[in-house]
Amino acid sequence: MFEKIALIGIGLIGSSLARVIRREGLARHIAISTRRPETLKRAENLQLGDSYSTDARTAVRDADLIIVSVPVGASGTVAEEIAPALKKGAILTDVGSTKQSVVAQMSPFVPEGVHFIPGHPLAGTENSGPDAGFPDLFDNRWCIFTPLPDTDPLALEKLSTFWRRCGSNIDTMTPEHHDMTLAIVSHLPHIIAYNIVGTADDLANVTKSEVIKYSASGFRDFTRLAASDPTMWRDVCLHNKDAILEMLARFSEDLSSLQRAIRWGDGDKLFDLFTRTRAIRRSIIQAGQDIDVPDFGRQVVEHPEKK
Amino acid sequence: MFEKIALIGIGLIGSSLARVIRREGLARHIAISTRRPETLKRAENLQLGDSYSTDARTAVRDADLIIVSVPVGASGTVAEEIAPALKKGAILTDVGSTKQSVVAQMSPFVPEGVHFIPGHPLAGTENSGPDAGFPDLFDNRWCIFTPLPDTDPLALEKLSTFWRRCGSNIDTMTPEHHDMTLAIVSHLPHIIAYNIVGTADDLANVTKSEVIKYSASGFRDFTRLAASDPTMWRDVCLHNKDAILEMLARFSEDLSSLQRAIRWGDGDKLFDLFTRTRAIRRSIIQAGQDIDVPDFGRQVVEHPEKK
Ligand SMILES: NC(=O)c1ccc[n+]([C@@H]2O[C@H](COP(=O)([O-])OP(=O)(O)OC[C@H]3O[C@@H](n4cnc5c(N)ncnc54)[C@H](OP(=O)(O)O)[C@@H]3O)[C@@H](O)[C@H]2O)c1
Ligand SMILES: NC(=O)c1ccc[n+]([C@@H]2O[C@H](COP(=O)([O-])OP(=O)(O)OC[C@H]3O[C@@H](n4cnc5c(N)ncnc54)[C@H](OP(=O)(O)O)[C@@H]3O)[C@@H](O)[C@H]2O)c1
Repeated sequence: MFEKIALIGIGLIGSSLARVIRREGLARHIAISTRRPETLKRAENLQLGDSYSTDARTAVRDADLIIVSVPVGASGTVAEEIAPALKKGAILTDVGSTKQSVVAQMSPFVPEGVHFIPGHPLAGTENSGPDAGFPDLFDNRWCIFTPLPDTDPLALEKLSTFWRRCGSNIDTMTPEHHDMTLAIVSHLPHIIAYNIVGTADDLANVTKSEVIKYSASGFRDFTRLAASDPTMWRDVCLHNKDAILEMLARFSEDLSSLQRAIRWGDGDKLFDLFTRTRAIRRSIIQAGQDIDVPDFGRQVVEHPEKK
Repeated sequence: MFEKIALIGIGLIGSSLARVIRREGLARHIAISTRRPETLKRAENLQLGDSYSTDARTAVRDADLIIVSVPVGASGTVAEEIAPALKKGAILTDVGSTKQSVVAQMSPFVPEGVHFIPGHPLAGTENSGPDAGFPDLFDNRWCIFTPLPDTDPLALEKLSTFWRRCGSNIDTMTPEHHDMTLAIVSHLPHIIAYNIVGTADDLANVTKSEVIKYSASGFRDFTRLAASDPTMWRDVCLHNKDAILEMLARFSEDLSSLQRAIRWGDGDKLFDLFTRTRAIRRSIIQAGQDIDVPDFGRQVVEHPEKK
């Protein structure tokens, strides 16, 4: 599909892209660049690409498609660095978890004639780095584009085809709507998970070893999100502040009301809420966005005969 | 191990017990009783026991071990009903998720000579009813006893052996400590999960279908707990009120502080919290209380070749 694809950043997302690009034959040449020599070395040992450099400018030279996969707070610096070496007609995209901030940071550096199309594949795990990636990561997951008013439709179509061949379904929306939507489906859940794990960690009357021993009764479900990369999540919080604060306010308001129902023993109110929320899981499973086995399939992994 | 075991309540927990008792040969006779004829019929079709009755008194007659597995709010009524038919020397236990309230409800009805030992297996899934059970449910999970001051050590030892043969590890503690511990490892996680799913469900600027489509980016992890049985969780909230309110207060306090860090762009504080919480997941995996594969193993279930 492309002569040369440059991947700037080769962590979970970048390395998953490298693997699926190779498997699907989407580029003749994969150029990899990352900040630290150790990470680059690891990518090379894993044979993720065809050329390797810590100099992003070298990697993007002559590339038809450049995918920036670094923490959102670093997007501006990366754009500034690569801008002079971008080829006319190339497509420049990113995978950052926030979009208004990335657009604000990167747009000013994009040269005339380069198609900048902000993107965000909604796919990931709690792990990071080049070892964490795998080619199926994007399978049946959504990739959201937030095209700018002057985005070339042909370039958008080409990039969409690329992501479809990586396994994704495509959606487009405004950066504002993206940031609001992601605040509820992704950012708030991570923040809440980090928070509850922090609360448990601080207790004195229940020890940490008790929390760990008894975690299978619910707590462990939160620890997966709370084990995600701290740099990535710090940046998300700093770069989608308004939407996150809005969702946090709603969440806290609802929690106060729930707390009040518990305090006053309002069983009917509790029962209603606990019934209403059940339906959503069913819909998520029907939409193919989670698996239809109890415990997220942990039982199947531990006892494969149950599959 | 026992001549006759009576199971009062045959949902997820009761039916898992029936299955493991049969598999391990822990009783010569399994008597099953449940409130509704439909549930009893289903248990009979699944061949979970040797005798079936909607009359709990009939089921417990001559039983050496009686296990009550009903929502905690119903424990008192069940105890009152079965009390006159309990055999001298029998062990009476329960599996309820709260302990102080169950002790308060059941103790007054326990006849002289019957050994009442409150218990709680920390094992479950989001599903309920007799079809949801499976014999491995208790494998490598903890079962907590909260013995009363006058509990007979021999009866406690016998019940412990029974649960060990069901796959569990045994711990004992006071009902007060149980309720405080479970408030953080189980009750708060469920309440938070119900709450966030409720918040998402109420939004107007992000539609429900968007929440469902994009849920793989974090939200779906909460929907499993929020799909748990509403009756069970209403009862838990009503019967462990003080400890839950205490944990909710701490959680909210921590969340306000996190919210403030986001509002004021305090990246270092965010980074510190997000780093600290990572360690807990590692410990949980080391303790054998969760599996060591990304995404709770969903990838392995979807792509079994990765195992
Ligand atoms: N993880 C997810 O679940 C997920 C999902 C969707 C989108 N995203 C987005 O994808 C992007 C990458 O995430 P990831 O999970 O792939 O992260 P990751 O595994 O931690 O990898 C991060 C990559 O960015 C580089 N990097 C880190 N800080 C940098 C800086 N200040 N300047 C330049 N490069 C820097 C790293 O290079 P070195 O190792 O060489 O330092 C590494 O190559 C983020 O914007 C994130 O929001 C993540
Ligand atoms: N689910 C978990 O993850 C889990 C884990 C550990 C402990 N527990 C505890 O185990 C107990 C049972 O939970 P479960 O998950 O097995 O529930 P379940 O699958 O919903 O089954 C509940 C059982 O209790 C009976 N029941 C319901 N309401 C009743 C009432 N008012 N009076 C008498 N019987 C009633 C039901 O009978 P009918 O169907 O005939 O009405 C059914 O047999 C609860 O105390 C819960 O706190 C649950």
